[in-house]
Amino acid sequence: MAAAIDFYFDFISPYGWIASRRIEAIAARHGREVTWRPILLGVTVLQVMGLKPLLETPLKGEYLLHDVPRTARFFGLTYNPPPPPAPAQPSPLAAARAYYWLFERDPALAKRLAQRLYDLQWAEGVDISAAETVAAAAEDLGIARAETLAALGNEAVKQRLRQAVEAAVARKVFGSPFILIDGEPFWGCDRLPMVERWLEGGW
Amino acid sequence: MAAAIDFYFDFISPYGWIASRRIEAIAARHGREVTWRPILLGVTVLQVMGLKPLLETPLKGEYLLHDVPRTARFFGLTYNPPPPPAPAQPSPLAAARAYYWLFERDPALAKRLAQRLYDLQWAEGVDISAAETVAAAAEDLGIARAETLAALGNEAVKQRLRQAVEAAVARKVFGSPFILIDGEPFWGCDRLPMVERWLEGGW
Repeated sequence: MAAAIDFYFDFISPYGWIASRRIEAIAARHGREVTWRPILLGVTVLQVMGLKPLLETPLKGEYLLHDVPRTARFFGLTYNPPPPPAPAQPSPLAAARAYYWLFERDPALAKRLAQRLYDLQWAEGVDISAAETVAAAAEDLGIARAETLAALGNEAVKQRLRQAVEAAVARKVFGSPFILIDGEPFWGCDRLPMVERWLEGGW
Repeated sequence: MAAAIDFYFDFISPYGWIASRRIEAIAARHGREVTWRPILLGVTVLQVMGLKPLLETPLKGEYLLHDVPRTARFFGLTYNPPPPPAPAQPSPLAAARAYYWLFERDPALAKRLAQRLYDLQWAEGVDISAAETVAAAAEDLGIARAETLAALGNEAVKQRLRQAVEAAVARKVFGSPFILIDGEPFWGCDRLPMVERWLEGGW
């Protein structure tokens, strides 16, 4: 069987969420598995690339606020972010840490948790920044709330996320979504048609 | 007849070139004209948005060098930029000034010149930075070389380009390509399928 596709995303990225709702079906049509890999744009974009936050970039920030709901509708998705002043920029740390923690125990369950958290954030209007929110979502999947909360405070778990982000940067991953197919990079949810063509054999 | 589509681009932008080879056919299918409007990313991206040049942005610069030829192939276009050390970043000033100068006389001819210059730069390996190169391309369209060279040294012509870029920024245009359909903004050549759907009535 061909190697799994690497699907990089940040939980704060609505474009990553749009891709998350489509990448599994695209991969399955071509006999591929998908490995989900949360990253932190706060590291890749702000630190490594030396850029400012997208929403604080003149002209582009305003465009993105218009484009995200429009793009979600284009793909047939219901976009429903948390209402302001609940953060325009929620924190992805708890969600990403919980993902990698659970991944070491049960990758399939970790992916279910990631999709659930992503949907909560961008389709169900729930800010997932708080550890308690992440733990409640995990509890719905059968993981004791106290166990998740303990893991989220564990230094080794925090270190695991740092390492994952460093590994992503080492593979030249920078945006969300960012998809690697046998090393071939695709950045952006508007590249999903190109991803599909690549899986069909390229061009 | 519906209003013309506004097609903004920078001659230094290969993604804008890719769009230039497709936008007229897309518009024609929906009974629309296209108004071409060269801009300067050196103003919009560097000055207004406060970002650094794309190719100097870590990770992103390297990705773009890989993505541009791949995207051109995806759209069935032959990408053939000038060889290095002929500039990775040619100057779009002469081409953009010549466009607006000629536009006031003959918009259709100005568009033909723009497409010719864009093809020279990205499909035929010719750096179009020099005024002489632009004047030679204009001569092929029947405009006396000396007349173009005189125009390119004219302060009023330079001012016309500055005003065009300011007007673009006032309409919140920032990238290349950037397409406005009845005020609806679309950024990026990977958004052409979305542009087409919008012209069909949106979603």
